[in-house]
Amino acid sequence: MASRDLKFIQDFLKRNWDYVLEKYRDKSRLTVTSKSEPADLLTEVDLTIQKRFADAVAEAFPGDLVVGEEGDLGKIPSNPRGRVWVIDPIDGTYNFVRGMNPLFGISIALVVDGLARAAGVGFPVGGQVFLADQGEGSFCNGRPLRVSDVQHLAEACVEIDFSGLDDKKAFLSRASNVIRQSGQIRCQGAATGGICQIATGDVDGYIHMSLCPWDYAAAQLIAEEAGAMATRLDGSPLRVFDGREGVLISNGAVHEALLGCITHS
Amino acid sequence: MASRDLKFIQDFLKRNWDYVLEKYRDKSRLTVTSKSEPADLLTEVDLTIQKRFADAVAEAFPGDLVVGEEGDLGKIPSNPRGRVWVIDPIDGTYNFVRGMNPLFGISIALVVDGLARAAGVGFPVGGQVFLADQGEGSFCNGRPLRVSDVQHLAEACVEIDFSGLDDKKAFLSRASNVIRQSGQIRCQGAATGGICQIATGDVDGYIHMSLCPWDYAAAQLIAEEAGAMATRLDGSPLRVFDGREGVLISNGAVHEALLGCITHS
Repeated sequence: MASRDLKFIQDFLKRNWDYVLEKYRDKSRLTVTSKSEPADLLTEVDLTIQKRFADAVAEAFPGDLVVGEEGDLGKIPSNPRGRVWVIDPIDGTYNFVRGMNPLFGISIALVVDGLARAAGVGFPVGGQVFLADQGEGSFCNGRPLRVSDVQHLAEACVEIDFSGLDDKKAFLSRASNVIRQSGQIRCQGAATGGICQIATGDVDGYIHMSLCPWDYAAAQLIAEEAGAMATRLDGSPLRVFDGREGVLISNGAVHEALLGCITHS
Repeated sequence: MASRDLKFIQDFLKRNWDYVLEKYRDKSRLTVTSKSEPADLLTEVDLTIQKRFADAVAEAFPGDLVVGEEGDLGKIPSNPRGRVWVIDPIDGTYNFVRGMNPLFGISIALVVDGLARAAGVGFPVGGQVFLADQGEGSFCNGRPLRVSDVQHLAEACVEIDFSGLDDKKAFLSRASNVIRQSGQIRCQGAATGGICQIATGDVDGYIHMSLCPWDYAAAQLIAEEAGAMATRLDGSPLRVFDGREGVLISNGAVHEALLGCITHS
């Protein structure tokens, strides 16, 4: 039985699904601008979805805080208490703008006193909706999820991401051993995609040097409810609003090996 | 008007489409083994498609040579003349075995005296069929293709691939400047996917240190017919059976910049 919060997330995804797909399919009419760097893109879909969500929260849960990737909502109060909704309206905007079978997600989490309680991530092109209530497991289109049982890095598929990094040289240096020791490396350009694929068992590890809460808050809960382990890059717990940036999420079995690769790079 | 050779490719893709999709959707019954390394996978689908294709060529074009990724067909005569069919039955087998919206392609080219004349690549999960006759343009599901007009690396999406490399350290060293200077990096694990996305204009560059003819012969023609440039990593022409390994394919506009990154790494 889904919580009221999870139903709210699910309803929001359902009500906005066709709008996002229509915009994706008629990309010639999109207004695309750049943010911090030329390949950091923004469209009116990001802004519209975030605005609709903030309005929906204000109506359904007056008093709840909303933080999100775009504009003013991106200013996160330090260590906010109580109920905080965290949205990335389009995670993987570059894929949304350019992509053959693109992986981009609408990501929504409810975080209470710093811990995610309910989460939903929708991937419109693939038709997948991932949902999780804390303690109740996670599901994709109703199917219960479980991480892989891959035990060794040489057989593992590890997702890394070079985007949004001020210092790509530093990341290359830290990721070098991961790239060399992992069986397969993927770089799909959407944090929600890589992390939700840990929940499905299709990917075994996900590493990013610099993620914001809206990039991972929802997908982290979905992955953890499927048995995943989630830490900072030094192995300490991954808390949504702790102000830190590095993220390592895995099936658990390859976590130590990945931490070792990062530490000894 | 498609050539007889292209129609043969198109018919073969059509006749085998449902078989591949059924096998993909019921992956629990797949027999998966490893080849040279733990993450280099092989399934009965690779073997079945290649066998069916060799049989179809023997019947329709007796005397034509067939080379392919699997088993004995992988032994390529040096610089073969005349008509040579080149097949990768499943390019991106790892994605086929593990993937949420997986990119894997069936890739077929007819090469005559060392030059690709007809090519087809099918992506069953996305429902895309790419076709090209030399000199006649390239098409995806009937839609004519054209490379992007992205002019600068800082805005470009570049696909790289770490799989199948004996020396990942050497590749990391050569790819380092590409990763640092490109706007977005993708690693989707299927050469046909990255190269066909240059034809659609979704990707601007593709780099691999070590590809075999079946990995790129078909996709190269499809990309070139959409306006792409294809060379070895030193800028020399990319010929299917020249016995060399490095591949750089781009929209043309960012080709020099990518060559510069590789040369000066």
